[in-house]
Amino acid sequence: MCRFLAYLGTPIFLDELVCQPRRSLLHQSLRAEESKTATQGDGFGIGWYGERPEPAVYREIMPAWSDENLLSLCASVRSGAFFAHVRATTGTAIARQNCHPFRHGRHLFMHNGQIGGYPQIRRTLEALLPDALYAERKGATDSELLFLLALSRIHQGEETGVAVVQVFNDTVQRMQRAGIPQPLRFCAALSDGCTLFAFRLASDGQPPSLYLRHGPHGSVVASEPLDGNHVGWESLPPGALVRITREAYEIEHVLPGFCNASPEMV
Amino acid sequence: MCRFLAYLGTPIFLDELVCQPRRSLLHQSLRAEESKTATQGDGFGIGWYGERPEPAVYREIMPAWSDENLLSLCASVRSGAFFAHVRATTGTAIARQNCHPFRHGRHLFMHNGQIGGYPQIRRTLEALLPDALYAERKGATDSELLFLLALSRIHQGEETGVAVVQVFNDTVQRMQRAGIPQPLRFCAALSDGCTLFAFRLASDGQPPSLYLRHGPHGSVVASEPLDGNHVGWESLPPGALVRITREAYEIEHVLPGFCNASPEMV
Amino acid sequence: MCRFLAYLGTPIFLDELVCQPRRSLLHQSLRAEESKTATQGDGFGIGWYGERPEPAVYREIMPAWSDENLLSLCASVRSGAFFAHVRATTGTAIARQNCHPFRHGRHLFMHNGQIGGYPQIRRTLEALLPDALYAERKGATDSELLFLLALSRIHQGEETGVAVVQVFNDTVQRMQRAGIPQPLRFCAALSDGCTLFAFRLASDGQPPSLYLRHGPHGSVVASEPLDGNHVGWESLPPGALVRITREAYEIEHVLPGFCNASPEMV
Amino acid sequence: MCRFLAYLGTPIFLDELVCQPRRSLLHQSLRAEESKTATQGDGFGIGWYGERPEPAVYREIMPAWSDENLLSLCASVRSGAFFAHVRATTGTAIARQNCHPFRHGRHLFMHNGQIGGYPQIRRTLEALLPDALYAERKGATDSELLFLLALSRIHQGEETGVAVVQVFNDTVQRMQRAGIPQPLRFCAALSDGCTLFAFRLASDGQPPSLYLRHGPHGSVVASEPLDGNHVGWESLPPGALVRITREAYEIEHVLPGFCNASPEMV
Repeated sequence: MCRFLAYLGTPIFLDELVCQPRRSLLHQSLRAEESKTATQGDGFGIGWYGERPEPAVYREIMPAWSDENLLSLCASVRSGAFFAHVRATTGTAIARQNCHPFRHGRHLFMHNGQIGGYPQIRRTLEALLPDALYAERKGATDSELLFLLALSRIHQGEETGVAVVQVFNDTVQRMQRAGIPQPLRFCAALSDGCTLFAFRLASDGQPPSLYLRHGPHGSVVASEPLDGNHVGWESLPPGALVRITREAYEIEHVLPGFCNASPEMV
Repeated sequence: MCRFLAYLGTPIFLDELVCQPRRSLLHQSLRAEESKTATQGDGFGIGWYGERPEPAVYREIMPAWSDENLLSLCASVRSGAFFAHVRATTGTAIARQNCHPFRHGRHLFMHNGQIGGYPQIRRTLEALLPDALYAERKGATDSELLFLLALSRIHQGEETGVAVVQVFNDTVQRMQRAGIPQPLRFCAALSDGCTLFAFRLASDGQPPSLYLRHGPHGSVVASEPLDGNHVGWESLPPGALVRITREAYEIEHVLPGFCNASPEMV
Repeated sequence: MCRFLAYLGTPIFLDELVCQPRRSLLHQSLRAEESKTATQGDGFGIGWYGERPEPAVYREIMPAWSDENLLSLCASVRSGAFFAHVRATTGTAIARQNCHPFRHGRHLFMHNGQIGGYPQIRRTLEALLPDALYAERKGATDSELLFLLALSRIHQGEETGVAVVQVFNDTVQRMQRAGIPQPLRFCAALSDGCTLFAFRLASDGQPPSLYLRHGPHGSVVASEPLDGNHVGWESLPPGALVRITREAYEIEHVLPGFCNASPEMV
Repeated sequence: MCRFLAYLGTPIFLDELVCQPRRSLLHQSLRAEESKTATQGDGFGIGWYGERPEPAVYREIMPAWSDENLLSLCASVRSGAFFAHVRATTGTAIARQNCHPFRHGRHLFMHNGQIGGYPQIRRTLEALLPDALYAERKGATDSELLFLLALSRIHQGEETGVAVVQVFNDTVQRMQRAGIPQPLRFCAALSDGCTLFAFRLASDGQPPSLYLRHGPHGSVVASEPLDGNHVGWESLPPGALVRITREAYEIEHVLPGFCNASPEMV
């Protein structure tokens, strides 16, 4: 399991969310409250949109709580769209290439959850990647793979929220066909710097926790409320797909019937 | 706080103590039971005596629980005298030079605890080091400093157990003179490969936990029992100084009156 | 490009070859003489056979020349069969999972060279892996992939030397079919702890340098002579396949006609 | 030896100097032209001034040439005052705490050179630090020590350029008194974000190389010209002290008679 947060709104210093709150993501890396694993010490990453269209990414294999570079960056960088993630591996190795967020072109992606029975289904899923994205595979995680699968649909013109849900759905079907009894759990965020998409999905109805706080200056999606109480934080229901822009946001409930929408899934 | 173990006896593979037991040191790095800090993820180290008089040391800044090198080394190295330590920093930086065990010549040392008010007293204590050992200071921890102070007495011919207790005692006195209200807590192990010394001391009578298990093949000193129950493990009392050889061991109670023994303390 | 050495013979301390010689592998990591890249600073690794059938591996992403753990391990570990490798990446990321030697069960493998046009051919080659080995893929290098391809043949009973040459050959053919103009260069070592296989192959006749020194106590295969002169070192010819045991060694010249030997290649 | 660059002027993306030029600092980390050591692979660091008065710092123990975080940060961060440094250690350990630039409050400092006979003189020099700065010592390098010594003078109101020269001078005198035959070599940069000070000093008249390029938009101080030729780059003479603001710069020649200026030196 992992913990993450994503922000879209008026530019703020990253430390306002990542480091300073009482239950900041930094705090959650050492002591999460609503996670199966209390400790998220298997690397971390931040990604943010600045003056250039491509976001910047800083990922490291140390625990977030002890990284002085992270503190310094978060105190210095101000951004109107950023991601932060602390990792608890579900089996793949500790390497920067396996840390979130993943970046491709203008897109950032991060994930909390896992593909049950991943070693059995990995090959099947990697075979779905188009050549160009196959060659972009840097690490070995299920998360990076799900991101690349979503990108392949986005590149074909599918709307981002739909693309991700279809990947989720398609993966669940293939897991079932492969006889994998474990669930696919999928809390995730994906952005191009303009719109922030967040997902709280699980094939067994038990996705990891995910919250939304919407204010006049911006929106935060976070695995856990950052300030130690739940005031102002909305727990996203299982099946939630959230689309957030700087002006508005909407929550769509994509489960349970959404599978029928996808003729590509065989 | 930290957690550690030391072994002296018939050569065994390191993983027999470091990795395999239900509450192994590896387990304690992620989830300690009797420590103020549950997580010891700020680096780790192992040191062992082999064919050469100088011990080998492997120290790393990652958490122990996720380091595949550590697993491989512990499965491969067999030794009759070894140390292992997982670190939770009390303030000094994450660096290999600040990880335990520390080595100097034939000696290994590791520590669980801290010098209260260390920034105020550090200079006073470093000034006590002889030139040769001053130049050997590689890191910034109170632990390395206490080790070098003990070595300076050992090099002058003082018996190792006495030397360490004198350093403890002298440090407490200097802390008091500097008006530092916090305690000196000091669980530690020191060895030259032949004798293993262990200490459970604290100026406030509340040292970290420390246990001893003595069997026909060897002795283990550990911050916490390794097998999830306390059968066969003796909780060392506060004030304990343990001297262990391959043939025997003895526990001396050095508190509370031991201070008088040291004419060098001014 | 990379530099490596492998030893089989009477047990010796690793530092006798890795650290102490005038042109030791440690020296070559900073200043190689016969390599396209003078600096091999993109990680390193050692692997050695000890008391257990599975070899131990220590791999790290720092340069070898500055790693105090490496010095300590090499001064402490004595082995009759070991590998050491310093890496200069040809494009894949700096990660332990991409460092050599690679281990699988009782086998160690390391490689100096590269598959030309690797991004174009990677997918084709990964598709050849049987499911069990596909799931074992930890990193992203061409080297690990060639190792797993060789293992798939060895697991089917093919003799190790033949298996590796067939993989080399098959890969060259697939590269040609894919229209890749760059060569496959392949200096490599593979061992199960009993026999050491070394290869100096290249599809363009220009493999990296590789030398053999055979003495009464053991054999060394190394990218460059370790002592600063070539006395006692035999430069292996292009096309060489060397089989070394503790008793003897033989050099086979597998090029140019060896392709015909493989009915499996389509 | 090391290589570095410092910039003061109109805000630019860091990669314009650190990564893109033909002989960029990134290039120099792998292949420097005017350094005793071709390879500067023992860690690196960047520091930059942004919206807050304290600069941000990112330091890492890997070689600069292979760090994807560095590339991403340099492509994303735009600053009007920044430092970058690639390290070749002269003996102290590889640790972030030993990497440049060093930061204290609003100040950044970096250094190329070394105190000859540092182990003999370290204690004498550390004893000169006021208590507050003594407690700030994080690493073990001569460079950090020289920085803290300069800060102690700056905090007392001494002009920055004079303070650094006095520290240089005082250190040379103490080295002579200690009978140290090796020189003090000292190319350095120090800034508070408004003024950039650069120094090219050596007690033996042979400081490392240092260049200045001044243009309409800003000034660059660099160990080596960044574009592969020397057009537009002024080689600073031995004994140079450069003061650079956003409006102007001046070069002062402080050697050989400057020693007399310092009544504090005993």
